[in-house]
Amino acid sequence: MKRGIAEVPGILCGTGFGGIKKTQKKLDRPDTLLIVTETPSVFAAVYTRNDVQAAPIKFSKGISSKVNGIVANSGNANACTGEQGLRDAQRMAELAGRYSGKGAPFLVASTGVIGELLPMDRVEKGIKEAAENLGKAKGEEPARAIMTTDTFPKTAFAEGKGYVIGGIAKGAGMIDPAMATMLSFIATDAKVPPELLQKALKEAVDVSFNAITVDGDMSTNDCVFLLSTGKSDVTITEENYEEFKELLTKVLKELAYQIVKDGEGATKVAKIVVKGAETKEQARAVARKIALSPLVKTAIFGCDPNWGRIIAAAGAAGVGIKEEKVELYIGKFLLFKGERADYVEEEVYKYMKESSEITIELNLNLGNESFEYLTCDLSYEYVRINAEYRT
Amino acid sequence: MKRGIAEVPGILCGTGFGGIKKTQKKLDRPDTLLIVTETPSVFAAVYTRNDVQAAPIKFSKGISSKVNGIVANSGNANACTGEQGLRDAQRMAELAGRYSGKGAPFLVASTGVIGELLPMDRVEKGIKEAAENLGKAKGEEPARAIMTTDTFPKTAFAEGKGYVIGGIAKGAGMIDPAMATMLSFIATDAKVPPELLQKALKEAVDVSFNAITVDGDMSTNDCVFLLSTGKSDVTITEENYEEFKELLTKVLKELAYQIVKDGEGATKVAKIVVKGAETKEQARAVARKIALSPLVKTAIFGCDPNWGRIIAAAGAAGVGIKEEKVELYIGKFLLFKGERADYVEEEVYKYMKESSEITIELNLNLGNESFEYLTCDLSYEYVRINAEYRT
Repeated sequence: MKRGIAEVPGILCGTGFGGIKKTQKKLDRPDTLLIVTETPSVFAAVYTRNDVQAAPIKFSKGISSKVNGIVANSGNANACTGEQGLRDAQRMAELAGRYSGKGAPFLVASTGVIGELLPMDRVEKGIKEAAENLGKAKGEEPARAIMTTDTFPKTAFAEGKGYVIGGIAKGAGMIDPAMATMLSFIATDAKVPPELLQKALKEAVDVSFNAITVDGDMSTNDCVFLLSTGKSDVTITEENYEEFKELLTKVLKELAYQIVKDGEGATKVAKIVVKGAETKEQARAVARKIALSPLVKTAIFGCDPNWGRIIAAAGAAGVGIKEEKVELYIGKFLLFKGERADYVEEEVYKYMKESSEITIELNLNLGNESFEYLTCDLSYEYVRINAEYRT
Repeated sequence: MKRGIAEVPGILCGTGFGGIKKTQKKLDRPDTLLIVTETPSVFAAVYTRNDVQAAPIKFSKGISSKVNGIVANSGNANACTGEQGLRDAQRMAELAGRYSGKGAPFLVASTGVIGELLPMDRVEKGIKEAAENLGKAKGEEPARAIMTTDTFPKTAFAEGKGYVIGGIAKGAGMIDPAMATMLSFIATDAKVPPELLQKALKEAVDVSFNAITVDGDMSTNDCVFLLSTGKSDVTITEENYEEFKELLTKVLKELAYQIVKDGEGATKVAKIVVKGAETKEQARAVARKIALSPLVKTAIFGCDPNWGRIIAAAGAAGVGIKEEKVELYIGKFLLFKGERADYVEEEVYKYMKESSEITIELNLNLGNESFEYLTCDLSYEYVRINAEYRT
């Protein structure tokens, strides 16, 4: 069994099925998730930077005390739903508190279609069922409850010195790294002071969830919640902070990788590595522009070592790269070094064809900074999924 | 016959076929264009802002005197080709001067695949043939010589008080409005002082070629050249400048519209109108973010009135829109007014299905500024064209 958030001491998960999404097809997975902490827990959060924020985001932002857990649903994002949406988010928290027997406060998250009011009778049914099943949802089961167009549940787990960190995520489309980029719920049993917890989450998100893209669209509902149950004897201080942050980063990067791998219609993951930059910002800007380029993404789908598009995208970042200094590798093949390098196109095609993960590496030869970005290819399937999303 | 640049007094066009693109298929159109002015002409130019600039761009930027015309080829962009590429661009200008009998200087432009050296023997063959045909290429013929994945030639022509403006363009993919966005060659017979010519071009480009997007990729080769042959008796001064600029804008907007209409794989043009903004920059940022969103573009392809994605994209611009104030129309249908409006989804679907041009209008209700952007939908065909571009 893959371990996730349910395997963190002090955490109990339950899932339920409310039938929230209007659909003819019967869903073969739950659509409601309840995560309860045995005792009130410190938490940290990172939210979407979209000007338009879904009701559960607005609601959760208002919570500053310890929480008793998280309640989440898939199938409806409760976004662009006005005052009624806010009342519904609050009601979800109340229902979670009531049926779990823990009372307020609960963090709330929703994912799914935008602009429709939550069917609250069915949401209540889902939460009630999830509460009845509390403790039964293990491994990948909690992650299954927050899937939408995801094709597999996403979990990660890591062990530190005397504590663990476990998490789940959902992603797939509308993925862009201008902050958190999907839903992800993480927990640790380490005792972490709120400021350190928030600092670690922000720093870890920056190089994981903020360094991936599927389609450059930023959702109204993105959030990452990190709970500290404190069930372990270990306390995180300035002493062991780096170690904790590294472990958290590892967990988040694993989840981020799975999100890109499951990008809508994706057949390949591409790791864009930009080295030799003057600043990290320059490296990030170049990597991001390449990662977002539809021309690069379709070329990857076609296994076409079209380095011209990659160089053009890098230049389009407008951060002062020097064409004549740039070296570009796809896999181990040097394709460009100020001008076309000497390579056999068929060999590079073969590498791209046979690899499910492609590495594109640019050395700008301007400095010593670097940044890595994950992206996926752009396929017919992406168009199909999104042109037919609601039909 | 549609009129274009060849119908401007003082301009002679010729086309030739060099066989520049490596391809099995025999091209049924010319690949080389020579535009010659009867007497040396003042010109204005706007170039790509990509850090990586093709050799013809670098070469043309070095010209400050009057020119005898423009030489251009399709099938090879002469980009990322190092020192040899620069020498080849210069050689194209020399060949144009020699075969036309006019001598230097000539502006140079290339479009096509990136990263391959120009086959100069075939380029010379094309230029020689174009020179022999000088004066014969009329109407749409010059535009045909610069087509790549374009499916139709793009021309525009307008008459002012005692002068005309005519132009051609090529576009289709790698279209993004961070400056000029494709190749476009325009001419007027009005006498225009160089400073006014440059000012008018810049201002007209800003609301035409800089307000369209197909895929958000910015090319290494984009340029817009505007020639003033001076064959008319009319001189443009501060007096009639606005009138001239308006006419030029009209011509450029017509070309810009054709480029979007011919966007790779496009089945529909979408006009994104953002009103009620505090500043023009705010309106432009929101319009651009919507125009670029793959989720919005696939929804348009699917005729899905998925306003949630539009609102989410608008919010992602991060320029302070207020969800509760936003009104969103698709066609004449009000879909959102702070929350979901009262509309019949089938009616909006029908409008989208039956229209080749869709209007998406957002009123931010924050101020009085507005901006219009043109985009197209994202279809299976876009993926096919770009995944198979070189195969």
